[in-house]
Amino acid sequence: MHEFELIKNYFQKLSKKSAGALNLNDDIFFDKKSKLAVSVDTYVEGNHFIDFKKPDLVIKKIIRSSISDLICKGIKPRYYFISGSGNKQSFSKSNLSKISKSLNQEQNKYNIFLGGGDTVFSNKLSFTITSIGFSKDIIYRNKAKINDDIYVSGNLGDSYLGLLVLKNKINLNQFLSKYFTNQYFMPNIQLKLASQIKKFANTSIDISDGLLADLDKMINSQKLTYKIKLKDIPISNNLKKVIELKNLSKIDYISNGDDYQVIFTASKNKIRIIRKIASNCGIKLTKIGSTQSISKKSCIVDDKNMQISLKNKGYFHKF
Amino acid sequence: MHEFELIKNYFQKLSKKSAGALNLNDDIFFDKKSKLAVSVDTYVEGNHFIDFKKPDLVIKKIIRSSISDLICKGIKPRYYFISGSGNKQSFSKSNLSKISKSLNQEQNKYNIFLGGGDTVFSNKLSFTITSIGFSKDIIYRNKAKINDDIYVSGNLGDSYLGLLVLKNKINLNQFLSKYFTNQYFMPNIQLKLASQIKKFANTSIDISDGLLADLDKMINSQKLTYKIKLKDIPISNNLKKVIELKNLSKIDYISNGDDYQVIFTASKNKIRIIRKIASNCGIKLTKIGSTQSISKKSCIVDDKNMQISLKNKGYFHKF
Repeated sequence: MHEFELIKNYFQKLSKKSAGALNLNDDIFFDKKSKLAVSVDTYVEGNHFIDFKKPDLVIKKIIRSSISDLICKGIKPRYYFISGSGNKQSFSKSNLSKISKSLNQEQNKYNIFLGGGDTVFSNKLSFTITSIGFSKDIIYRNKAKINDDIYVSGNLGDSYLGLLVLKNKINLNQFLSKYFTNQYFMPNIQLKLASQIKKFANTSIDISDGLLADLDKMINSQKLTYKIKLKDIPISNNLKKVIELKNLSKIDYISNGDDYQVIFTASKNKIRIIRKIASNCGIKLTKIGSTQSISKKSCIVDDKNMQISLKNKGYFHKF
Repeated sequence: MHEFELIKNYFQKLSKKSAGALNLNDDIFFDKKSKLAVSVDTYVEGNHFIDFKKPDLVIKKIIRSSISDLICKGIKPRYYFISGSGNKQSFSKSNLSKISKSLNQEQNKYNIFLGGGDTVFSNKLSFTITSIGFSKDIIYRNKAKINDDIYVSGNLGDSYLGLLVLKNKINLNQFLSKYFTNQYFMPNIQLKLASQIKKFANTSIDISDGLLADLDKMINSQKLTYKIKLKDIPISNNLKKVIELKNLSKIDYISNGDDYQVIFTASKNKIRIIRKIASNCGIKLTKIGSTQSISKKSCIVDDKNMQISLKNKGYFHKF
């Protein structure tokens, strides 16, 4: 069962009277009256992270993944709660020291604070992170307009390369291996965007499942589709280098998830303010396509405006 | 490692700048400025609940356990978030229907609403519940005064008998078996107390680990101890009956946890208002002892004022 079926069939009705739950269709909860925004996510070893050999890095990854949900909606995260289930080995003194140190570094980097949590015994390692922020308003999903420009922050694909390195599915030199695995564990999430995005975006989402999967999710209840230009999708110089060296296809490396960059749409007349804010704040924001009428299919096109077919649109949570 | 050592050694410093985290010494997070109260708890199969043969009942138990943390502090829970990790069998259509129905019943009973959550695949079943409420103020731990009366809500021990029945460690007739297992899965938590307790309590906690373990926790950073009278500890008529029939000792059945009743202390002059509110709201509140100077040891005494020794003070979370 797809995650959205599960929500629709069993849980949506439970949130009906709850003004803030956004029908469980958004990644976060937002209660306009109390200005409260909440994101809850669970991360399981072997699924959301490969293993716990590097607890310091795994912790950074899941904290950033969690607060990214708030940031992409225009909310600065303020508190986080971490609940860990694991065995004695996972929570050894050495690992607890590393976890604590990593959390401290993330707190300083993103100006967030530990609110509380829980630690319980389990033979399967998992963490649930609850992130909380306050905001007068947020950017919702499914509020794109027709012919909006589609933008993405930062670069895509580095995290996926890091995953391939960690799984020994690609062979790179030490420098590149380290670069990509660092991007996998410590994605460059865009805290500065949180206070700016409401000035120009109509709708937004962060990329956890993959560019195209998340684009679909962002406008899934609208009568809209998207058209993306492959050449405009921003990738790092290091990824460009690997694609050239190994003779790979860019299309296979830009929609595999775990990027934690922000996709948003904006009316065409916002282009100047977007460029100005990007430049002033030092955030890379790249126009990669536009929304269009549902009479056209969602597509990604090459330099000659020809549709490209995809092996995999991204990761869908399934049961 | 005890849970409190783990918090003290690795996590307390991370919450220092966070006004609301109460140094992680309380069961909840409370931010006075935003009036936000948050409780996060993880429940693992085989540890916090025996198995998932009765998903409807397990869900009721964990929801009540979570909101009990807020209620005992004088906060009405408003939203809850449920994050489940499990396999296809645990989240089969039949189980999801039961979970959804149970959540709906709890929502109606306690006037709470689903805010969101997550569902992820794992071969080990666990749930993390985040409960949220808003309040101008709360009852803190470690605010008892010397010679305060100590009160407890409801009856104790029924839930433990239910656990013994479920584990086939006690043999009772069908009526009593059902009564006690129902108390185990569906403890009578005291929602009405949430709006009243601030009128009289100095400090409070809910009983999850056991009467005496939680009494210790409630005043663990104060120069105070407690003296409890065994005969005054309220138990149900059904538990009285079992204790008589099976020739058991009451002392072994009142501090084993999972009661989710509220312990609080109040100045002696509050006795009239406490009786009045208990009577008007239909809440059973029983005076069971008092706080005393640390020059005396914490103790529980029999009818002749003699100290009783205990096999087990309650459940401590250990790694």
